[in-house]
Amino acid sequence: MYIRNAELTLSDPMFFYSLPIHVGMLNVVIADAELELIPGGEMLDDYQVRKYAKKRKKPAAEVLLDSNFLHGAIERHFPGGSTRMGRPDIFYILLQVLQESILNKRGGLLRVYIHTKHNKVIHIAPQTRVPKSYNRFVGLMEDLFKKQEIQSGQEKLLTLKDADLFSLLDDLGKEVVLLSPRGGRPSKPEDIIREDMSLVIGGFAEGDFQTDVYSRYSAHSIFPDELTIWSVASEIVVRYECMFGPL
Amino acid sequence: MYIRNAELTLSDPMFFYSLPIHVGMLNVVIADAELELIPGGEMLDDYQVRKYAKKRKKPAAEVLLDSNFLHGAIERHFPGGSTRMGRPDIFYILLQVLQESILNKRGGLLRVYIHTKHNKVIHIAPQTRVPKSYNRFVGLMEDLFKKQEIQSGQEKLLTLKDADLFSLLDDLGKEVVLLSPRGGRPSKPEDIIREDMSLVIGGFAEGDFQTDVYSRYSAHSIFPDELTIWSVASEIVVRYECMFGPL
Repeated sequence: MYIRNAELTLSDPMFFYSLPIHVGMLNVVIADAELELIPGGEMLDDYQVRKYAKKRKKPAAEVLLDSNFLHGAIERHFPGGSTRMGRPDIFYILLQVLQESILNKRGGLLRVYIHTKHNKVIHIAPQTRVPKSYNRFVGLMEDLFKKQEIQSGQEKLLTLKDADLFSLLDDLGKEVVLLSPRGGRPSKPEDIIREDMSLVIGGFAEGDFQTDVYSRYSAHSIFPDELTIWSVASEIVVRYECMFGPL
Repeated sequence: MYIRNAELTLSDPMFFYSLPIHVGMLNVVIADAELELIPGGEMLDDYQVRKYAKKRKKPAAEVLLDSNFLHGAIERHFPGGSTRMGRPDIFYILLQVLQESILNKRGGLLRVYIHTKHNKVIHIAPQTRVPKSYNRFVGLMEDLFKKQEIQSGQEKLLTLKDADLFSLLDDLGKEVVLLSPRGGRPSKPEDIIREDMSLVIGGFAEGDFQTDVYSRYSAHSIFPDELTIWSVASEIVVRYECMFGPL
């Protein structure tokens, strides 16, 4: 047993939410996320990319790849890639769901990590709230890729480090539960949720993991059809809270 | 007891998800939603409104009020209004959460209605999926306000009708549970969820209901601090599914 959130201080408003002693924590780890800056090389000179970067008032190399606006350019440089690459929108919704959840706001039992396809790991601090505007969210991510961290006063709201998925999961040191489209016959969520766990969800809307996750973990599913990543996350987070949370 | 989704036909893929006999259904009713076209009158001539409408390639009167882009214009014409008015973003996220939920996808036990501050009621059919791009979502809502319905083939995905909140709730005919910032001491969600209910959540980020809801219903809350409407909805939807759903 340990006091959760031991890193919080008395002056932190989250501290008072975290007083009860609790034996575990839920890490939500998004893996191989399709979140990246516009890839270097020829794509930076694409006319659509240049126009979009100009609109965002940034050098193209500092602009987030976004298939909502760069669908054609992605197809020109990565044929067939536009259905999967450049999806900041799914992380925008995911983080709105996770950061605003009761488990995060009251429980302090949730930690969120986004591991990207290029082996960057973004840690989102529990007190971080996502901008309401999608455009501002994209701007925030661009700042993060440039500066490696986003602070507010003394608090680090977002940090970005180099790490592969397995190093991250090893560092977190908890039992890993992998959700995957290859998970086969769906489990009841209650049967796979542990009080102290790292839940891995693929950060892509199509296809499968790039990291060789199946060499280390067995795959589970909770639903026979496709689910968005925020639906998976909210199913698990709310059920975790029912099972182990303060409500 | 009745067979749920009796209106579905054998050829509808949802039919097979809805075969088990079930005694109830969850209506999520968003009330007094801050979702409207740009108000008529002087605001239509505001320079910021004209510029934004031009960018959207529509007459200003057919453009959705959006404080993400029209903050200054709202303040000029409705001083103090910009913290509350014009929030399509919260309905975008809410509908991403509700329509993609397991309760909706498998259970067919969920129905979603958005009642707006101007007494319009939007019904979102269970098979409706929200565009991934926020801009396209805004365009879809603008189309709906113009045409009163959005169809895909024979299916009505979205319909818009005139009705006040009480008429809607009376038509739905189920027990009403009102969640409100005035709800006082929080209840356990399980204590207020009914198998056959209409759950009312305020469709605004600040303030209180315009409709005199307290004259008819007592107010409940599930959390001592503020929650976004999608957090409230996902808490209830996942717990409803735990209690009564097919999982």
